[in-house]
Amino acid sequence: MKLEINPIGFLFTEVKKIPRHWSVSDAEGVIHLEKEFVEAAGDIEVGQDIVVIFLFDRSRRFTKDDLLQFPKNKNIKKGVFSICSPVRPNPIGMSVLHVLSIQGTEIGVRGIDILNGTPIIDIKPYVKDKYDCPSRPEEREKK
Amino acid sequence: MKLEINPIGFLFTEVKKIPRHWSVSDAEGVIHLEKEFVEAAGDIEVGQDIVVIFLFDRSRRFTKDDLLQFPKNKNIKKGVFSICSPVRPNPIGMSVLHVLSIQGTEIGVRGIDILNGTPIIDIKPYVKDKYDCPSRPEEREKK
Repeated sequence: MKLEINPIGFLFTEVKKIPRHWSVSDAEGVIHLEKEFVEAAGDIEVGQDIVVIFLFDRSRRFTKDDLLQFPKNKNIKKGVFSICSPVRPNPIGMSVLHVLSIQGTEIGVRGIDILNGTPIIDIKPYVKDKYDCPSRPEEREKK
Repeated sequence: MKLEINPIGFLFTEVKKIPRHWSVSDAEGVIHLEKEFVEAAGDIEVGQDIVVIFLFDRSRRFTKDDLLQFPKNKNIKKGVFSICSPVRPNPIGMSVLHVLSIQGTEIGVRGIDILNGTPIIDIKPYVKDKYDCPSRPEEREKK
């Protein structure tokens, strides 16, 4: 199945040693949005967390030998669907990043575990709890 | 940019009225994994939450008129990167689902906001807090 993917932008960072996972990262970078998507980012706010979906564009191709992999510094292999490896059946990554700044096409972010130059393919609101997303009136009443 | 995507499985559900978002959903379904990926799911545990990445395979194609959209039951348009709409620049969805059962190729899940028959393209561990993912010894020491 071929999917037509158009990056909405790219992540740039000067950090050389990228942390293993966003949950343990204080590294900073900038998402440079393609101009055509600036309007779509107009409601992102400084101080907010966002879900960033990206392509593992430099990971080697997944083979059946990668179904089980050693997590970093572990001695026991685990199924790839239970670990954060960049070598996955489909090379798609997800990180939760903290928004530091927004200026035109540039979104400054903290918490990156993403290599310099990585194609970004989506940004979504980070929903931690029920009802963080705009809800229907009847759902709000149940709250 | 064309990306070769191979679904790792499909989501099936008998629920007709799919809730708007996983954070407000108690609907149940089953992820039928392709046989070749069963081993990759061997460390998923009943009772765990998982991140499920999928394709919005029945959403209409995104155009520049969709940069801003009305969230459900809201009167003000918002940028698509701040809402959970299935009409996105790249048709990729993400839900956090609760694992109810695992039997061979079938993973029973609760919390679906995913249409019956949707292609699933990745499963990742759901990291709520720092250090949920296997970490390096030096990172654990900092904890």
